Amino acid sequence: MHQQAIRRPELLSKVMSADAAAELIKDGMTVGMSGFTRAGEAKAVPRALAIKALASPLKITLMTGASLGNDLDKQLTEAGVLARRMPFQVDNTLRKAINNGQVMFIDQHLSETVELLRNHQLKLPDIAVIEAVAITEEGHIVPTTSVGNSASFAVFAKQIIVEINTAHHPNLEGLHDIYIPTYRPTRTPLPLTQVDDRIGSSAIAIDPAKIVAIVYSEQPDSPSTILPPDAETRAIADHLIDFFENEVAEKRLGKNLAPLQAGIGSIANSVMNGLLNSSFEDLVMYSEVLQDSTFDLIDAGKMRFASASSITLSAECNARVFGNFENYKNKLVLRPQEISNHPEIVRRLGVIAVNTALEFDIYANVNSTHVCGTKMMNGIGGSGDFARNAHLSIFVTKSTAKNGAISSVVPFASHVDHNEHDVDILVTEMGLADLRGLAPRERAQLIISNCVHPDFQAALQDYFDRACQRGGHTPHILEEALSWHVRLEETGTMKKPG
Amino acid sequence: MHQQAIRRPELLSKVMSADAAAELIKDGMTVGMSGFTRAGEAKAVPRALAIKALASPLKITLMTGASLGNDLDKQLTEAGVLARRMPFQVDNTLRKAINNGQVMFIDQHLSETVELLRNHQLKLPDIAVIEAVAITEEGHIVPTTSVGNSASFAVFAKQIIVEINTAHHPNLEGLHDIYIPTYRPTRTPLPLTQVDDRIGSSAIAIDPAKIVAIVYSEQPDSPSTILPPDAETRAIADHLIDFFENEVAEKRLGKNLAPLQAGIGSIANSVMNGLLNSSFEDLVMYSEVLQDSTFDLIDAGKMRFASASSITLSAECNARVFGNFENYKNKLVLRPQEISNHPEIVRRLGVIAVNTALEFDIYANVNSTHVCGTKMMNGIGGSGDFARNAHLSIFVTKSTAKNGAISSVVPFASHVDHNEHDVDILVTEMGLADLRGLAPRERAQLIISNCVHPDFQAALQDYFDRACQRGGHTPHILEEALSWHVRLEETGTMKKPG
Repeated sequence: MHQQAIRRPELLSKVMSADAAAELIKDGMTVGMSGFTRAGEAKAVPRALAIKALASPLKITLMTGASLGNDLDKQLTEAGVLARRMPFQVDNTLRKAINNGQVMFIDQHLSETVELLRNHQLKLPDIAVIEAVAITEEGHIVPTTSVGNSASFAVFAKQIIVEINTAHHPNLEGLHDIYIPTYRPTRTPLPLTQVDDRIGSSAIAIDPAKIVAIVYSEQPDSPSTILPPDAETRAIADHLIDFFENEVAEKRLGKNLAPLQAGIGSIANSVMNGLLNSSFEDLVMYSEVLQDSTFDLIDAGKMRFASASSITLSAECNARVFGNFENYKNKLVLRPQEISNHPEIVRRLGVIAVNTALEFDIYANVNSTHVCGTKMMNGIGGSGDFARNAHLSIFVTKSTAKNGAISSVVPFASHVDHNEHDVDILVTEMGLADLRGLAPRERAQLIISNCVHPDFQAALQDYFDRACQRGGHTPHILEEALSWHVRLEETGTMKKPG
Repeated sequence: MHQQAIRRPELLSKVMSADAAAELIKDGMTVGMSGFTRAGEAKAVPRALAIKALASPLKITLMTGASLGNDLDKQLTEAGVLARRMPFQVDNTLRKAINNGQVMFIDQHLSETVELLRNHQLKLPDIAVIEAVAITEEGHIVPTTSVGNSASFAVFAKQIIVEINTAHHPNLEGLHDIYIPTYRPTRTPLPLTQVDDRIGSSAIAIDPAKIVAIVYSEQPDSPSTILPPDAETRAIADHLIDFFENEVAEKRLGKNLAPLQAGIGSIANSVMNGLLNSSFEDLVMYSEVLQDSTFDLIDAGKMRFASASSITLSAECNARVFGNFENYKNKLVLRPQEISNHPEIVRRLGVIAVNTALEFDIYANVNSTHVCGTKMMNGIGGSGDFARNAHLSIFVTKSTAKNGAISSVVPFASHVDHNEHDVDILVTEMGLADLRGLAPRERAQLIISNCVHPDFQAALQDYFDRACQRGGHTPHILEEALSWHVRLEETGTMKKPG
């Protein structure tokens, strides 16, 4: 097995235990690890690092692609390893440490981290820990179920630890397309013009002398935690499909729509699922993550090709896809997240971007990250990379949360990740608001009429009407603007008493 | 003179008065006019239209490149012509009409308007009114001191009115580089890789049969209204130059820095002026507008080349530049604003973007547009096109406004045009905050320590300290967050009484 996975004989001497490899990670280091949407993260070394740190404390700056699975962020947080963390996370324990100020979290657009590294605007990783299915004859690294930032981390780091994970299908080799933009000031255009273009290499090209350790692991990716569609997510999908059908009827889109991006999570996955029973065909994706819905669409003959940076599936779908991977492989490509999310490509292709909002306000400012403007949920992720440059920037959410106590539509967003200039379409189970070409007052009326839950509609209309009496391009009553959030914090509900 | 400017003989028959041409603009039409940063706007026809509308009312949707000069937005507003206006304006009368809800203003990223038109997400102009120095033998239109959205307006409109303005130097011909991206889904990379690349044609290629009227005018562009540097803008420039020098020392930038973008206005112009006495050389600009400072830098041998979408100069500088235009012409190019501001190019070149903030909050969310979150000033303009994709996204402002009554640094931005993810550096006359790689709590302390006026520093520190006691990734006290703005509205100052 060693010979198969490690095809450069001189590297066989680098095989060691995870504990031994973890010793290479020292206090104060910046560490770049693989892993994106809980897929393809290095598993054995970070766990060994957490265990080691319980005995002899150390702190690092940890950069990844995006979220890690297998409770690794939890274990690293509990062991006190994380001084700084970027650019994304989804772990409940880490989230608490971020919100109480223990861990400094740098929430970044996912396309930008390696650009900042390349320009020395962030400290380069001292060491990279990259999960792989193989090391080639040239000593190049073949990633697993995600590419994320692994390629640039490996290029920038002085030392590399490779984790060969035998739980992954070795046939993942050939799936990846590793392209790294050339350096400024002589950077050339990214040569990708179609979602199925291959512009790079199938492995991460590095000097094999930088590989200081190779660790074997056999731990699968965590299965995805998406929920099945429910009545509300189905209603959201239906509104959106009606909208797409009208776009086709108006000849603004063809029957194959445009390259689709869907954020991670249950709502976006449900929306994509809705396309199964639509009239659209020959669909393609240009997204950051492929979830179950992508493979359902491929199986149904609806989707021709899907490009992303990772594959994150439920246990059932994982067995189906990787049990029969040859059937899918020629319809897929995994790219570095810098490329999957690159503004240049997103604008060129004219992507339809579907992302989930935490809340939005009556003028279409979207909060994707902060509960009541203060507490970090996960991070902005790729939503800004796509929304800002998309052909259609769509945000979806259920109209209420916490059993109806919270309205997802508020007078004034308590945090703004995507502002009114970058939001075209808002959808809740109540309906859809097409905001293109509208002024703020027009947008507000449409959002209140179409997207708000009846429990909150009269109060929002009242706020807007009274604000308009005061005037302004974007009318507000500043002393009331955040009162819904204040009430929520004080009483547990945005609803007025009585 | 006709023969010189109109080089396609069959078009000579289209010459008519501005009044006659204005009759071609009908009630309910969408009209696309030239003009960007008060440069190169059609002058005679809109004025004739305003006069005509006083007698027989009509309403139109007016799209331009950006702001118009010569009080045209004022006259059109007073005549009640404007039902809808996009994507930018700077006129005081129009501003009032926008803020009282009379004119629906659609405030857009300047690179996006023609992309939305191309995809039929906005209604195409029925008629385009384009200022020109000449019409070529082929019937193509040579713009004047701006390109703006003129090329795409002319391509999309069914009819075109050309205004030949003999007040402009005919030698402007050859200055422009007209490139229009190809259509999706087969769009190819924009082939521009250096600021001085020419990738298009020197005139706007249209079917000359669409030219329905040619009007002569002889009215200069309005001179720019920028103020000379003062002690505060000089201090801002000094802080920024110190920062650049450190970037060079740290080898993150070379002595020629990177392509520079500077927003329109006195502060950004002053910052650019500060480079005159710096050690940097061989500078280039990739910006949307060239102001006096660009030509001062060229004259001083500091700047090698400047690319933009318009030239807007003081009367003095205008006389100097156009009195000796052959000396400058080979160092300049004017492009469509879609290209001067294109995310693909801004990210590829690694532009240093310097834009003016109206206010920013302690976490680096920037408001560029709305006074007290409600009243529109001008519009977002190109600031988002650049800030979002730049190598360095810098925002500058004086630390106070209205004789010290208003702090430009507030607990919570009353409107967010550029969020924390897209802002690298903040500068006031008090100092500079380098926010790269910092978490929100770290950013807040740096901003409060470095950028805030002493009159407001203790109050902001107190807000931040008390917010941190409550916790959160981005600590806030929501019931106080907008209290500085509320106090300003109620008392005329953000300062607490007593």
